[in-house]
Amino acid sequence: METSFTGHIVDIAGRRTYPGTIICREGKILKIRKVDEVREGAPYYLPGLMDAHVHIESSMMTPVNFAKAAVAHGVVGAVSDPHEIVNVLGTDGLDFMVRNAGCTRFNVCWGLPSCVPSSCMESAGAEIDAAETAELIRRKDISYLSEMMNYPGVLCRDAEVMGKIAAARAAGKPVDGHAPGLTGEDLAKYVSAGISTDHECATLEEARRRAALGMKVIVREGSAARNFDALARIISEAPDMTMLCSDDRHPDDLMQGHIDAMVRRGTALGISIWDMLKAAAVNPVLHYRIGSGLMNPGDRATFIAVDNLTDFNVLQTIMDGLVVYSAADGGLDRQALMLAEPSSEMPNRFEARRISEPDIAIGYGPNARVITAYDGELFTGREEIPAEGLSDPQIQKIVVYNRYGHNSPKTGYIKGFGLVKGAIGSSVAHDSHNIVAVGSSDADLVRVINAIIDAKGGIAVSDGRDTDILPLPIAGLMSGLEADELSARYKELDLKAKRLGCRFHAPFITLSFMALPVIPSLKLTDMGLVDVDNFCFTEVLY
Amino acid sequence: METSFTGHIVDIAGRRTYPGTIICREGKILKIRKVDEVREGAPYYLPGLMDAHVHIESSMMTPVNFAKAAVAHGVVGAVSDPHEIVNVLGTDGLDFMVRNAGCTRFNVCWGLPSCVPSSCMESAGAEIDAAETAELIRRKDISYLSEMMNYPGVLCRDAEVMGKIAAARAAGKPVDGHAPGLTGEDLAKYVSAGISTDHECATLEEARRRAALGMKVIVREGSAARNFDALARIISEAPDMTMLCSDDRHPDDLMQGHIDAMVRRGTALGISIWDMLKAAAVNPVLHYRIGSGLMNPGDRATFIAVDNLTDFNVLQTIMDGLVVYSAADGGLDRQALMLAEPSSEMPNRFEARRISEPDIAIGYGPNARVITAYDGELFTGREEIPAEGLSDPQIQKIVVYNRYGHNSPKTGYIKGFGLVKGAIGSSVAHDSHNIVAVGSSDADLVRVINAIIDAKGGIAVSDGRDTDILPLPIAGLMSGLEADELSARYKELDLKAKRLGCRFHAPFITLSFMALPVIPSLKLTDMGLVDVDNFCFTEVLY
Repeated sequence: METSFTGHIVDIAGRRTYPGTIICREGKILKIRKVDEVREGAPYYLPGLMDAHVHIESSMMTPVNFAKAAVAHGVVGAVSDPHEIVNVLGTDGLDFMVRNAGCTRFNVCWGLPSCVPSSCMESAGAEIDAAETAELIRRKDISYLSEMMNYPGVLCRDAEVMGKIAAARAAGKPVDGHAPGLTGEDLAKYVSAGISTDHECATLEEARRRAALGMKVIVREGSAARNFDALARIISEAPDMTMLCSDDRHPDDLMQGHIDAMVRRGTALGISIWDMLKAAAVNPVLHYRIGSGLMNPGDRATFIAVDNLTDFNVLQTIMDGLVVYSAADGGLDRQALMLAEPSSEMPNRFEARRISEPDIAIGYGPNARVITAYDGELFTGREEIPAEGLSDPQIQKIVVYNRYGHNSPKTGYIKGFGLVKGAIGSSVAHDSHNIVAVGSSDADLVRVINAIIDAKGGIAVSDGRDTDILPLPIAGLMSGLEADELSARYKELDLKAKRLGCRFHAPFITLSFMALPVIPSLKLTDMGLVDVDNFCFTEVLY
Repeated sequence: METSFTGHIVDIAGRRTYPGTIICREGKILKIRKVDEVREGAPYYLPGLMDAHVHIESSMMTPVNFAKAAVAHGVVGAVSDPHEIVNVLGTDGLDFMVRNAGCTRFNVCWGLPSCVPSSCMESAGAEIDAAETAELIRRKDISYLSEMMNYPGVLCRDAEVMGKIAAARAAGKPVDGHAPGLTGEDLAKYVSAGISTDHECATLEEARRRAALGMKVIVREGSAARNFDALARIISEAPDMTMLCSDDRHPDDLMQGHIDAMVRRGTALGISIWDMLKAAAVNPVLHYRIGSGLMNPGDRATFIAVDNLTDFNVLQTIMDGLVVYSAADGGLDRQALMLAEPSSEMPNRFEARRISEPDIAIGYGPNARVITAYDGELFTGREEIPAEGLSDPQIQKIVVYNRYGHNSPKTGYIKGFGLVKGAIGSSVAHDSHNIVAVGSSDADLVRVINAIIDAKGGIAVSDGRDTDILPLPIAGLMSGLEADELSARYKELDLKAKRLGCRFHAPFITLSFMALPVIPSLKLTDMGLVDVDNFCFTEVLY
């Protein structure tokens, strides 16, 4: 079957457009033929956009449903790190993701998580060591070693950490970084280990230092961390060293805009469209050696149409020669996007037993350590107060409960969520995804936790009377719902949490980082209260 | 010993300058300390410039003398391909270059030539196959596999060619390219073989296509090929993908200016100084993993001082903490530059015996094939004319004579040099460096050829009465003279060649490419007349 698309051909390398026809045969680009002219208002055809770093699980959607949402924004593929599900299910989780994504034409470049578990101070569902990494990294469906968060391990040249990196390099696959705030000689040492990207830059200065060392800067605009405005200039200064990513995005954010929105925002800031398109479409294909996607003859016939290079509204997304999304003509064409029907499997691991109020009681002591949460931040502060101060209505209880059946619930105190009644909880709790809940009463905490256990995963709100849950039956991380329905349900729960008095912009996102002991300063994991700064466990009451 | 240098510190990564003091101890940078202010007119300190691709032999100077000339222009190192001497002497030539350069603080990053010999249609003095390449590329003093000129071999995935590339990649060393004019799918195929640079771009379009495929573009301004003006824009468009080089430069050109002159020219064209400095100083260090040279603490204390970032006049070149060049204070400090006295060795291979006129006689035939030479071009044209037309005074004889003692002299006809009397000759004749001569009479041709044989290499002019020669006793390629003296002698011979009627801008450079059978279209080698377009030998008279 031969199909053709006529319009302005966007030649990113040549920094020009020209009138032409893309001729596709059997899903591939046969050639692009120049024509004399095209009709008024003809579309602009260009390579599809790539999300250069994303944890698909954070969308709470399966890869299939993520793809359905992404193609509406001209995103034809993603460099995806299945870090969340692999921490829950090990390679079974990886295999599920690969199989599920493989049912679509959406092009996922899969990474092998480098930090499973992320820390020895929490219990994950799996462990992948250097020896297993060396086996897995050779798989054809694995393209890179994903974010090496253990930068202390890199800096001290820990044998396990270096073994994983060496295995990836020997297999000729790039190693992704994750080095928030790292500078100077430490940064140089981190890069010299062979780590070639970072998506954690928060300042232009950080981005420049990384690019100057030959490291690619992946500019992030997620639901929580939003770095685009601060980093935009690096795209002009080092257009070949930058990519764009969403990292962690909730479904409602994904529906609003994706990499296309970053391109629009960049050009509005005065960045050349050619530099933006290098970052958005070209550089991920080169860096991750995706091997197709730049509209060269012989490539898969996967590209997009936009109205023009200023407004940059996506009109069509074409994959393997088929129009899978058309803004003017019915939106998504599910049948065109899919290669096969995904199985109905819902892999999970949820062994925790229901709890009751005595399980989350805390003893007595003269003083208490209280976690301080801040709106939209992954880090926390700490307060040390006399125990009588715990009656402050701004302080609530936080519970983290091992979902794999290993430990009893751990309870601590937290300030900042502002719940005046009820409780909220989630089985999305980076990076081990145990159950985390914050509540104004033990009864409500027990209610949301048990609701999550009954559903084998989900996000839940108890308002003191009713408990509402959005089940996440796939690994306790993902729903089977599509973006619109999922987004609507998510927004309902978000609103309910806010009605309990929570003043955070995104309560469940902030909640999901309260159990992550690799980010300072005081965190509660399923193993207990962690003094991250001193890398040790500590007592709630003392 | 601790030394310090105070002025404006040029922070290329940060795209800014700040007042500071560079503190050096034992030849290394200990730290850079910010200061409150510096004196009016204080110098600007920045990383030294790197020539990212050069054949030092083309300067006709030894590495020691090349270094002496280079440091006066703020060039502290070079990525050098000893292609010429290795084609003459094999690894003995490589070892000589490494030893000689090692007597200085000048930082040479040595490549292993990938094409020895360059062609099966000429006789070189050595051969390096894939098996030997696999051995040699592992040497610590070898940093990359140098220009892979055999692009037909790459495109057809020739086993020997691919074996050399695979060996370099297995050793973790980059592979340099050389792909003039290659486009489209052929270019993509060439890049996908693992070749990561090209210094042969002549148009912006070529440069953009290469950068778009992830290939670094080395912008060249040599004595013959001058691409800077055509390519300058790529430095703004893809500042992390570009480097600057001289490739082949004669001593007089090197004395005029080097990478510093390219920086000045770029900023005069409106290119940001920061982008120019990335190309001139930073990118070669990153691409070739030189590991020092960016003024980081712990780096060798090798950097330069300029008057300001607009005029960009080099005031000082500092190496390992020592001032090796000071414009205001005596120029070059030989003692500071040198680490050891170079040996007086002059490796060579020159077995050819003297010839007489009958050796260069041509037979009889009704028609003749005539090479057409063009000013400054490496390619030639061809004419096929009746033999009686050979009496045209614009047509001279060209002789190529194997210097290794293998073949008798080969003689052909050439047009374009415009010699009305006398002859010129050279033992610099790419890539096998046999003797090449063009002359208006057999007597003069014999005279220059025998003078070159007697001297075991050199460039020579006979004016019908006297023969003048600049001896090149090192491999028939290099003199022991320093730049100023060598340049003066070279200019004398150049002038003498022009007095014979030669209208070429640089007669000896053009002459040196007349025996190179990898560039179209009709060439004479020591083995005979080569029809390059059809890849076969052909008859002069037919």
